[in-house]
Parts: sequence; C-alpha cells; structure tokens
Amino acid sequence: MLEPLTYRLPITSFRMMDLNKLGEFDLIDLIAQRTPGGPGVLRGIGDDAAVLNAGNGQVCLWTVDTLLEGIHFDLAYYGPDDLGVKSLAVNVSDIAAMGGRPLYALLSLGLPSGVREDQVRLFMAGWDETARAYNVSLVGGDTVYSPQGWTVTVTVMGTCPKDRVVYRAGARVGDFIYVTGNLGSSAAGLYLLQHPAITCPEHVRLAVRQAHLRPVARVTAAVSLAESRLVTAMIDISDGLSSDVGHICTASGVGCEIYASHLPVSETVRECARYAQVDPLEWVLNGGEDYELLFTVRPDAAQEIEERLAVIGEQVSCIGRITPLGDGMRLVKGDDKTPLLPRGYDHFKGRGL
Amino acid sequence: MLEPLTYRLPITSFRMMDLNKLGEFDLIDLIAQRTPGGPGVLRGIGDDAAVLNAGNGQVCLWTVDTLLEGIHFDLAYYGPDDLGVKSLAVNVSDIAAMGGRPLYALLSLGLPSGVREDQVRLFMAGWDETARAYNVSLVGGDTVYSPQGWTVTVTVMGTCPKDRVVYRAGARVGDFIYVTGNLGSSAAGLYLLQHPAITCPEHVRLAVRQAHLRPVARVTAAVSLAESRLVTAMIDISDGLSSDVGHICTASGVGCEIYASHLPVSETVRECARYAQVDPLEWVLNGGEDYELLFTVRPDAAQEIEERLAVIGEQVSCIGRITPLGDGMRLVKGDDKTPLLPRGYDHFKGRGL
Repeated sequence: MLEPLTYRLPITSFRMMDLNKLGEFDLIDLIAQRTPGGPGVLRGIGDDAAVLNAGNGQVCLWTVDTLLEGIHFDLAYYGPDDLGVKSLAVNVSDIAAMGGRPLYALLSLGLPSGVREDQVRLFMAGWDETARAYNVSLVGGDTVYSPQGWTVTVTVMGTCPKDRVVYRAGARVGDFIYVTGNLGSSAAGLYLLQHPAITCPEHVRLAVRQAHLRPVARVTAAVSLAESRLVTAMIDISDGLSSDVGHICTASGVGCEIYASHLPVSETVRECARYAQVDPLEWVLNGGEDYELLFTVRPDAAQEIEERLAVIGEQVSCIGRITPLGDGMRLVKGDDKTPLLPRGYDHFKGRGL
Repeated sequence: MLEPLTYRLPITSFRMMDLNKLGEFDLIDLIAQRTPGGPGVLRGIGDDAAVLNAGNGQVCLWTVDTLLEGIHFDLAYYGPDDLGVKSLAVNVSDIAAMGGRPLYALLSLGLPSGVREDQVRLFMAGWDETARAYNVSLVGGDTVYSPQGWTVTVTVMGTCPKDRVVYRAGARVGDFIYVTGNLGSSAAGLYLLQHPAITCPEHVRLAVRQAHLRPVARVTAAVSLAESRLVTAMIDISDGLSSDVGHICTASGVGCEIYASHLPVSETVRECARYAQVDPLEWVLNGGEDYELLFTVRPDAAQEIEERLAVIGEQVSCIGRITPLGDGMRLVKGDDKTPLLPRGYDHFKGRGL
C-alpha cells in the first residue's frame, strides 16, 4: 500500500495527476522524502552533489546528470565533440558548486542506430579534452543501444575537506549575493542557434554559441572560495539565476533582492540582444546553463572574497543581498521592486504534453 | 586530429562503418583505450565496477547501468515497482561481483509524458524495498523529461577491503569454475512473458517471471567469497554464461571447459522448457540476467569454498575448469567437446538496423 503524503499541493489534487502538472522539483521531493539518509551521508538529495563522509577529514562529493537528444541538445547544433565537452563539464560544475575538486567519472552512453564510429570518436575527443582540463579520470561506464537518439548520463565523483564544503542552505539575512563571470551568454547562444535567420556579426555568434555548447565549470574559483571559508551558500547556475537563487533561498529559509543594474552582462550578449530584438534581462534571469557560481558572503568578508578572486583572475559581481524570508524574492530596478519568480528551466512543469 | 588506432578489426573496415557492425564490447574498447587511469585508480574500465583507492586499506567500488524502455524492459511486462527493484539490484550485483558491499546510489530518472504520479510512487516502492534489502542509501540523482519512454540510470558505490577485491583477471589454468544458484530462470521468465500463449502451470510462470523481473544480487555470497581470499576471478552473470565466462577468460588470458551436465537448472526451468518446447541449455548458456556469481577457485581450495557457502545456505555448483588459452572455450557434453561461443546479450552487434 502507498503511504499517505505530506506534500506541497493539497493531497486530492495530485493523486493520479499527470507529472507535467507537478514539475521537476516536486518530483524530486517525492523521491527524496521516501529515502532517509544512511550512515556516512552528510547531505543526500537537495544540493548540487551528495556529500559522503570519506574519513580522514575528507568528503566524497557525488553527482549525476542525464542529457537526452531532443531535450537537452539538438544534434543540428551540437557536434558530438561539443556533447562530450558539455556532458562532463556540467557535472564537474556540480562538484565545483560544493567547493570540491572532481576526480573520477563514469559514462553511460546510449547510441541510436546509424551512429557512425567517427561520431563516437569525436564525442570522446571532446570528453578527453575536458577530462584533461579538469583532471578527471574516466573509470567506467556502460554502452547501450538507444532507440531514440543519444542519451548521455555522466556521474562525477569529487573530493573536498569536510570543513570546507559549501551547501545551499547557509545563506543568512544581510549576506551579499555574488556571481562569477557573466550571465546570459548560453541563452543568447541557444537563441541564435534556434533563430539562424537573425543577422549578427560572426564573432558575436561564435562567442555565444561557444558559451552554450562548451560551458566552462568554475573549479578554480570554487576551490578558492571554499578554502576561504567565508562563503555561506553556493550553487552553480544551471536552471537560471531566478531559479537557482530560489534554490539557495528555499534551502536557507531566506528571501533576496537582486539588483538588475548590477547583473554582469557582456557587451557580446548585449549586442546579440540588439540584433535579436529581445531584452537581455530575460536571458540573464531565466536562461540558465551559464554554469557560473552563485554564492553568498557575510558583508564583512566581501572585500576579502573580491580580492581573493581578483588574484586568480576570476571576475566576480555583487548582484544583491539576502533578506528575511517574509520579503520573498525581489528584483530591484531603480526604485522599483517586483517579485522575482523562478522561471528557469523545469523539465516537467507546464510542458502541456 | 583523431589518432591512429590499434583495433580488433582491420583499420579500413571500421572507419565510418555503422556501430551495429562493431558490437558493444568493441565500442567499450574504443572508449577505454583513449582514457588512461588516473591517480588512485586501481581498475578502470573493463571489470564489473571501477576500483578506486579510498585510503585506510579500503577501496571504493563504482558502477553504472542504464535501462531503457523498449530495450531493457517492456512496461507491458514490468510494473514500475519491478523496474525500481531491478534497476537497483543489477547495479548492486556489479558491486557484489567485485566482492564488495553496496553503500550508496544515485538515480537518474527520465520520464515520458503521461506518466502518472502513482507509477513513480510504485517505482520508488520497489526501489525502497530493494535499497532496504541491500542497505543502500539513495543520496542523489536527477529527473528529466524523456521523449521516448522511461530511462533509468543507476549508479552504485560500494566498499571492500583492498586486499579482498576479486577481479575478472585472476583465473589460472586448472582452477575450478563455480556458479551460485541456478541458471536460465530469467531467460525462461522472459520467454514466457514474450509468448503468453504458452500454457504452463501458474506457479511455474510466476516463479520464472519473478526471476526475470526481480533478480536477486548475491551480496552475502560475494562478501563471503571475497573474505575467503580463495577466489581467483569473479563476475556476475548479466550478459549470459557463455559471454560472462568469456569475459573472465579474456581478462585472464585462459580458456575453459564447461560441463553441460553440471550446469544447475531448476526443475521449474526444465518444466518451462518442456511447455515451451525449447532446449533449456540455450537459456542457461546464453540467456543472461541471472545475476548469479560466476567465479574460479584453485582446486585445493574447492572444498573450503563449498563448505563456506553451505554454511550461509548458498547453493553452489562446480561447472567446469580453466584450461590453457590455446584450447579456447569449450562446452563438454558427454564425450563431445564443441566450441563455446559467447552468444549472450550485446547491444550493438548484429542488430541489423
């Protein structure tokens, strides 16, 4: 017999309902609530990676991501080498978001009929390039025939000293909110790939395309931030800033204010947006897949953090601050404060299928 | 630039060829040859699980398996709860095949449109039952929308003392070959599921159906065998006896003789075979998915191994012996010796798509 539930939605409204009315994050709750942590589990479901006690003052960080053709990527845009890069980089980014270094990977590769060996070789060339860049060893995996396109599931294991792991749940009222690099490049790249008729200088198109197809995980910045022990919460921007800052706020039981004028947007993305005639703020807030680090810091530690990242050549921007839970999430534009809604990517919600 | 290759097939014959002419095991070589092991990697690709040095005399065992609807399972046969059981059990079996105990799991779940929440709950009920049985904690995962059916990727991490890990590569000429339990039940179950018109007593149908849908991983037997330090090589039977004994022989650089009369076949499977009018030997040799342990032992340790397993109530059968490489793999039936061809499951070979 199924057990009665505690759930966000009224119990009558979701039994037997379609999952696309629920959304991915409710689905994760459904899975997580039935599975208590075991011995050695410092953090299970609900952060960028699981955190397992590895002894000797170290933890083992562990994450998995599946990329499906037609959902996460379109081979009309992606070369197999891009897919090799991205499938590993997004998992490395999850390890980085906890403050860890990646060590090992498993690759589960589903291939459709008609795939040629040179495509698999290109995939592995992209993978190898990325594995070398992050010092990740491929130690196993499996290969299956997939009836409907490529399916790529990557699992990455990493390590971190136990006292330096950064969770989502540590943000406190008054903390400053920071982000590394620039936002919106990946979404701009996807937009141009999906709208090839838009005229745009070639160097601009290539730059944002690269950002979308071959994201960079901020491991060096993440490890430096974790070593400082001044970061109260951290996540990588995969779903989109609005959703990911929401994950920090939910986990930490706080609200936030994001200052629109402080959001780091490259001139390349602004130029793209002019050619595409869209508001770049949409890409920046909700586009996702930037894989930059979003983190919170006590105000008295802000200067030290900024100096620390400057030394290693990492750009960082203060984009907001943590507020009491009751204030919710707000976007500040000049004197105007509007609710900031988590509108980043969700696999199931509102799919209307 | 892609590098020139050393490969089983002549170089001219496989460039740009379809992967279905290659076969899964060549594909694994293609992936493995480009990725050298890193620091701490005791065994990478090529065994049931990766073996990573975890310090303190322990290793971390790590494995992944993807199950795709329409390829690995048909929801006309499988309840979501069966799928929850099997997706975890087959990975636990890979950890057991190295002599280890499972500890943690990640679950990556791809769900198509139209999936109902009660189906996900059933899946998790099957998962939880299995996780409790093997003391595995679910610590993370991801959920994605899958355009074409359920995709279930499970990663399991386990542990074992470093000096007790059992690899595929240790079999030596003269060793006895053993298998736990009975063989062919899973293939018999699949056959009856695929041929519902076959009349058969209901208790027989249920028993083999259960073997196929809800396999049992032999963790207790595996740990006992590893503790004995008398086992020279071990694998679990997933692809099929003929293929899996082939994996041991290839890794160990030896041949083998399998005695047909010694193969353990339950009366239930024999009865199934009579109703189905097929030779049960086909199921036993090539059916796969039995998840029994196949292992080799020095002759002077055979009695101790048999007694050890008898004490914990595990059935074990001596089914053959290891021979020199030059003798190949042979099936012995009475006075007759015929080549034993690895004809177990391969995802890509001979698919003809």
